[in-house]
Amino acid sequence: MSSKQVSFLENLKKVLPDESVVQDELVLSENSRDFGQLSEMPINPIAVVFPTEAQQVQQLMQLATEFGMPVISRGAGTGVSGGVHVLGEAVILNLSRMNRILDIRPDDEIAVVEPGVINHDLNVAVAKFGLMYAPDPASYKMSTLGGNVATNAGGLRCAKYGVTRESVLSLDVVLADGRLIRVGKNTFKGVAGYDLTALFTGSEGTLGVVVRAVLRLRYLPVDERDVSLLFPSLEEAVHGVQLIAKARIQPAILELIDHATIQVLDKQYSTNLSASGGAMLLARLDGYGAAREEEAIREVFADRNVVLSSAGSSEATQLIEMRRTSRGDTKDDAYRTGEDVAIPKSKMVEYVHRLQAAAKQERVDLRMISHVGDGNLHPTFSVEPDDVGDPLARLHRAVESSVRIALEMGGTITGEHGVGLIKKDWLPWEQSADVLQLQRSIKSLLDPLNILNPGKAI
Amino acid sequence: MSSKQVSFLENLKKVLPDESVVQDELVLSENSRDFGQLSEMPINPIAVVFPTEAQQVQQLMQLATEFGMPVISRGAGTGVSGGVHVLGEAVILNLSRMNRILDIRPDDEIAVVEPGVINHDLNVAVAKFGLMYAPDPASYKMSTLGGNVATNAGGLRCAKYGVTRESVLSLDVVLADGRLIRVGKNTFKGVAGYDLTALFTGSEGTLGVVVRAVLRLRYLPVDERDVSLLFPSLEEAVHGVQLIAKARIQPAILELIDHATIQVLDKQYSTNLSASGGAMLLARLDGYGAAREEEAIREVFADRNVVLSSAGSSEATQLIEMRRTSRGDTKDDAYRTGEDVAIPKSKMVEYVHRLQAAAKQERVDLRMISHVGDGNLHPTFSVEPDDVGDPLARLHRAVESSVRIALEMGGTITGEHGVGLIKKDWLPWEQSADVLQLQRSIKSLLDPLNILNPGKAI
Ligand SMILES: Cc1cc2nc3c(=O)[nH]c(=O)nc-3n(C[C@H](O)[C@H](O)[C@H](O)COP(=O)(O)OP(=O)(O)OC[C@H]3O[C@@H](n4cnc5c(N)ncnc54)[C@H](O)[C@@H]3O)c2cc1C
Ligand SMILES: Cc1cc2nc3c(=O)[nH]c(=O)nc-3n(C[C@H](O)[C@H](O)[C@H](O)COP(=O)(O)OP(=O)(O)OC[C@H]3O[C@@H](n4cnc5c(N)ncnc54)[C@H](O)[C@@H]3O)c2cc1C
Repeated sequence: MSSKQVSFLENLKKVLPDESVVQDELVLSENSRDFGQLSEMPINPIAVVFPTEAQQVQQLMQLATEFGMPVISRGAGTGVSGGVHVLGEAVILNLSRMNRILDIRPDDEIAVVEPGVINHDLNVAVAKFGLMYAPDPASYKMSTLGGNVATNAGGLRCAKYGVTRESVLSLDVVLADGRLIRVGKNTFKGVAGYDLTALFTGSEGTLGVVVRAVLRLRYLPVDERDVSLLFPSLEEAVHGVQLIAKARIQPAILELIDHATIQVLDKQYSTNLSASGGAMLLARLDGYGAAREEEAIREVFADRNVVLSSAGSSEATQLIEMRRTSRGDTKDDAYRTGEDVAIPKSKMVEYVHRLQAAAKQERVDLRMISHVGDGNLHPTFSVEPDDVGDPLARLHRAVESSVRIALEMGGTITGEHGVGLIKKDWLPWEQSADVLQLQRSIKSLLDPLNILNPGKAI
Repeated sequence: MSSKQVSFLENLKKVLPDESVVQDELVLSENSRDFGQLSEMPINPIAVVFPTEAQQVQQLMQLATEFGMPVISRGAGTGVSGGVHVLGEAVILNLSRMNRILDIRPDDEIAVVEPGVINHDLNVAVAKFGLMYAPDPASYKMSTLGGNVATNAGGLRCAKYGVTRESVLSLDVVLADGRLIRVGKNTFKGVAGYDLTALFTGSEGTLGVVVRAVLRLRYLPVDERDVSLLFPSLEEAVHGVQLIAKARIQPAILELIDHATIQVLDKQYSTNLSASGGAMLLARLDGYGAAREEEAIREVFADRNVVLSSAGSSEATQLIEMRRTSRGDTKDDAYRTGEDVAIPKSKMVEYVHRLQAAAKQERVDLRMISHVGDGNLHPTFSVEPDDVGDPLARLHRAVESSVRIALEMGGTITGEHGVGLIKKDWLPWEQSADVLQLQRSIKSLLDPLNILNPGKAI
């Protein structure tokens, strides 16, 4: 450890409680990375700091500014873009102990939370009041609301209720120099000044540390109807999404799982779904219109070669639960990469075609799971480690193709997972030099010493 | 005209077509202000520039940078915060001739527009495809989409479909120095880099000129049911909003009009509504659940002292149409001021009480019309010009009270109209010095010479 690092930690320990500055090797290594699969191995941070209140975060940032010490904010580390990976000298600011629900105001339909609250825990707490917090990444039982805000997380219910940004009303943010600011408002509408709340939302810990959030809640729907639709092929399933939209049905959830993923579910849950079809749509209809929307879906697909779950059965609900809680492949190993493009809706069928062609050409395995109602696709590519002909190079080329094709079709390199480290090289494929420059200058404005999660996101 | 101004205009006329630089007195004066009621009289701009393409906007901004010439972007001038008021040397950049709908992509559910397209015109064009552009300020037949974006306009349908921000996917923006950048994405989801689209949305022409927007559309609802509810008092009407929410009903539109406003409608449309009650809620239920939501509303208010429009009648629909197209009092004269606070939902009844008390104390007339489903209230205060005891001072005090009380209750000074010039003095009541400073530094970053709508919004 350098003398700067020693001196920084000494100073830190003077101001923070003993138990909040941890240097245990195991804790350091557990906090050195997230679920993102990165070729470069992470190193250990010099310490992991576990604040229990905002003031401690301020004290940390004051010292970090004084010493020029990089600080990486961390929620649960479920990110899949390497957003919390440690590649150089850094302290991890682990916010998991700031996990109090500070206030639930049912009649205002808002909750006030610390950043370390787990998404699911908030939903359990507000359900008592007949309310829900809508954005539900598939990691909802693990990931923190602070992490959700910092990545502008999507989720299953976002098809109808919008992504995290649409539910964030106000944030308390500790700036790089330790100042604490409050941005946004407590009301659903409000346009006083620039939209700084949206600026911090999705900024992946590079502009400030979120230490408190005012979140919009919604009343739980009066009714929910789940339908599964088994299509002969992936293309037909994707086309089904268009048919549902044209029937003016707005599902709360509309997920796609392909044949290979169905097989994984079969294995995991001892089901036998893969026997009967190619790809599946899982739809949840909710609210006062749920029953009529279910009927409408059944009408749309009545004369088509589609197998629907029978009305009133719990089949589709179980499948959605599997999809929601399934870890799937997200903990990527070195021979598997999951992507996160979003595509204009009309192009999805063509995209799937070209994706399949690219996978075939590079002889890589392809499967797909998608928040397809929003055009957000998660293809996963994999190769056999002992295969001939440089499998990793082929994997890499297939992944790059998937991203290039998405961009050619007017899509984006990341629908919800964020840029982190993993997608940084692709950002210039999507955004112009001027836009990148503007983002860098906003970063410099807020973090002139480049100590907040340096090297990530932009 | 100063020699700088003469030389600036000479240079401008060299690069722009003749008809696009106008110095006609009438045009100058028409373009010197918006609907906002300001004590200081606006002056004429030195010219009004009417570009027909983005490149001309770039040329204008290049020259403006060279000469340090202030430029005020203008849509239709329907703003009510003095956002386009000319108080010093300035050119008006009038975008009304850049009014082409560039593309409608029904299967992507998006439209690409120039900034001068009138909100309603887009809705007419996309209705052919069964689609709508949801955010509908009451000025929708006059205001431009560029102006809507620049103010992050709200509207009637925003209760269910969100404000303008939620429908803006991508923007082309000409920066102060004339560079053209494209921010955002063509897809519903996307988190690549910082949310610059949200930063420009609502920035009231102070950070850049919007020259093209990609807007999200939605399918038109399959069904619409309108209900009017007449309550004995304003407080009971406001309380009714809570009851509707608790029944988990999500109206597309939920507007409040008070007794005085009902009387105005009576006069304007020769109706006789005011005879029968105190205040009115107007609700539109839409989508597959419309009929069931209408039933649910009728159940909620069945045993209460509320008069509902009879089922199947067109009464409520006509009232909503009146509310939507009524100019109301928005063209304020000097003895009348309309406000635009938003309040946490649970506090609305108390707010109305205190507002009435404040109006009574200052002996000013109070009425109210509201996007109440979102907690966004528009009280209007007025005095008789020839009244004794300095009516204008009393008017001023009542307005300030309304804003201070809103802030005390955790509300905001502006729900949707923006800060413009009129609310600038109140911004420090709501936001801390650090937040104001941060906004100013973002402004300096993007507009170092302070030539984009200087003195407005922040
Ligand atoms: C099984 C699984 C399913 C998933 N499903 C989805 C999904 O459906 N949708 C989706 O969007 N994502 C999904 N993800 C990705 C991930 O869960 C989300 O990105 C989530 O929001 C990360 O939350 P976290 O608490 O784990 O944050 P972390 O991984 O700890 O951090 C993520 C980023 O946020 C920053 N950060 C964290 N907390 C703060 C804070 N308080 N202040 C400032 N910056 C902070 C970090 O620096 C980092 O850049 C999934 C991941 C897994 C493993
Ligand atoms: C009868 C009436 C009803 C109204 N109802 C509502 C309502 O329900 N909800 C609501 O939110 N507002 C409402 N308003 C206010 C107003 O209509 C909105 O603010 C509207 O969005 C302004 O659009 P505009 O084209 O008239 O913009 P303008 O008034 O011309 O400009 C407004 C602001 O945007 C900037 N601007 C305009 N175009 C551009 C551009 N292309 N690039 C950059 N900056 C630009 C201007 O500089 C100015 O700061 C109402 C006004 C009236 C008169």
